[in-house]
Amino acid sequence: MHILITGAAGMIGRKLTERLVREGALNGRPIAALSLLDVVAPSKPPGFAGEVRLLTADLAAEGEAARAIAARPEVIFHLAGVVSAEAELDFDKGYHTNLDGTRALFGAIRHSGDGYRPKLVYTSSMAAYGAPFPPSIPDDFHLTPLTSYGTAKAMGELLLADYTRRGFCDGIGLRLPAICVRPGKPNLAASGFFSSIIREPLAGAEALLPVAETVRHTHASPRAAVGMLIHAAGLPRETLGPRINLAMPSVSCTVGEQIEALRRIAGEPVAARIRRAPDALIERIVAGWPERADAGRARALGFRAEDSFDEIIRIHIEDDLGGSFVA
Amino acid sequence: MHILITGAAGMIGRKLTERLVREGALNGRPIAALSLLDVVAPSKPPGFAGEVRLLTADLAAEGEAARAIAARPEVIFHLAGVVSAEAELDFDKGYHTNLDGTRALFGAIRHSGDGYRPKLVYTSSMAAYGAPFPPSIPDDFHLTPLTSYGTAKAMGELLLADYTRRGFCDGIGLRLPAICVRPGKPNLAASGFFSSIIREPLAGAEALLPVAETVRHTHASPRAAVGMLIHAAGLPRETLGPRINLAMPSVSCTVGEQIEALRRIAGEPVAARIRRAPDALIERIVAGWPERADAGRARALGFRAEDSFDEIIRIHIEDDLGGSFVA
Repeated sequence: MHILITGAAGMIGRKLTERLVREGALNGRPIAALSLLDVVAPSKPPGFAGEVRLLTADLAAEGEAARAIAARPEVIFHLAGVVSAEAELDFDKGYHTNLDGTRALFGAIRHSGDGYRPKLVYTSSMAAYGAPFPPSIPDDFHLTPLTSYGTAKAMGELLLADYTRRGFCDGIGLRLPAICVRPGKPNLAASGFFSSIIREPLAGAEALLPVAETVRHTHASPRAAVGMLIHAAGLPRETLGPRINLAMPSVSCTVGEQIEALRRIAGEPVAARIRRAPDALIERIVAGWPERADAGRARALGFRAEDSFDEIIRIHIEDDLGGSFVA
Repeated sequence: MHILITGAAGMIGRKLTERLVREGALNGRPIAALSLLDVVAPSKPPGFAGEVRLLTADLAAEGEAARAIAARPEVIFHLAGVVSAEAELDFDKGYHTNLDGTRALFGAIRHSGDGYRPKLVYTSSMAAYGAPFPPSIPDDFHLTPLTSYGTAKAMGELLLADYTRRGFCDGIGLRLPAICVRPGKPNLAASGFFSSIIREPLAGAEALLPVAETVRHTHASPRAAVGMLIHAAGLPRETLGPRINLAMPSVSCTVGEQIEALRRIAGEPVAARIRRAPDALIERIVAGWPERADAGRARALGFRAEDSFDEIIRIHIEDDLGGSFVA
């Protein structure tokens, strides 16, 4: 089994790589080779006995997508992308990576010319939806994104479905919720604060809250997201039917409920490290995002998120903080 | 007022041009200039006193879109496209025209750099939906097309909404039903037979019916479609909100009901000119198309189709046959 991960240097890419290396197998088959691609140099995963190909490449650049699939990986996790706030601030960069890079990858697969038909797990986003919403978004709700990021993600879903329908690949798209708690440094995602208001206080630092506590959003841990990707790679084509893009399960809660959960788990002094600092751009972007999604099809197909935000915080402490925090 | 029509040599393009010339005004303002663009040479409309620019161009080709908007038309009707069956048979040609051509036009507008922000009326299609459907498709139903044509149309809707949201243009997308009765020669649209089973018998010729009489679809006349385009051009931006792509009203009926209407209006000898000739590709494409759509938002905004298929046949006889047919 040969696996390609695009966006391998990103947070989810690294956690997915770690888990694949730890398990040594995917869909019950041993992993012989890993191709790790990113625009910044990915690092060699420690403890992996198989072959590793490290690729520093922009998929949208001429020939790069063809090179990325030259060894015909059987499974591709396509995670590469420019995040929401960055794609909003840099229109060309966002479309270049999120649309053209994706299309170049799909096109290279189609043009392989040797019957190559990989399993292709595509990461879409809840940001492909746009307000106004019903209280919970049904599986057949339309995609009317209110960001360029969400637009490109939705366009990628459409392309993936068409390429799959025509038999060029065996695709599945996962509309991921906000991934929370993101470890490490903040990125340019507009959703970043959902993580930093938990992560920074647990590390003894102050966190800025750019929106009101009444803002509701829907979350899953990095561990759950990686689990969804791996579960998707193992789903047989015929279980999906023609609608291969799925809203993923998640935990819906308000920012106030997030803070309460932090207080329950880590105590008031930790929760007190959150400072209000309203930000108009973030407020505007987040106001167009979904608060809750049914994800009935995904749940029926075996996809799982956490059951509470408390659980999401505990997973962060366990997976990223070695079990402890700054009280 | 300067108007650009892309796909001007097509059936709807020609009928739209005729009506604009006849009325001499759009949105209450006199039409001073018409730019007519198509991949095949458009013809100069008779009886138009204003300036006419005829452009034979592929919008996706380098520089062509910029040239098309060089005179800064205030209203653009973007009708250019490769039809459904052709886009299904020629994957590259379909995406080149329906996606790349559309993106090139939007991109040229964005890059004008002089504050240019035209009204842009985009023709999408009911083929942007994909089965299975509820009995009638609600306005917030997702787009899961089952053709490459529908996929590119849905991607164009997403792009148009993002370009409009960002202020590059003032867009509105119309999800047109099957346009029936199409005059003239059959084209490569999979929906062509919906028209030819009416048109050919009325002209004294035999028509082939490639699908079962139980097949239900949803229609509007060319006259109604042109009316929708013109109505769209006059809608103020603020009446639309962020969801600028709308399912259009239409007449839902089965092929059997179409034939009954033909019998009522033209008599049994005319209806008897339809011959059954099943076609697997057409059957498959049409099976994934919608049977009925609510179009509640469009109706509330003043868009209108016919009330019955009888009316659609009468409009064909009136507009395209000079009021008579071969009994």
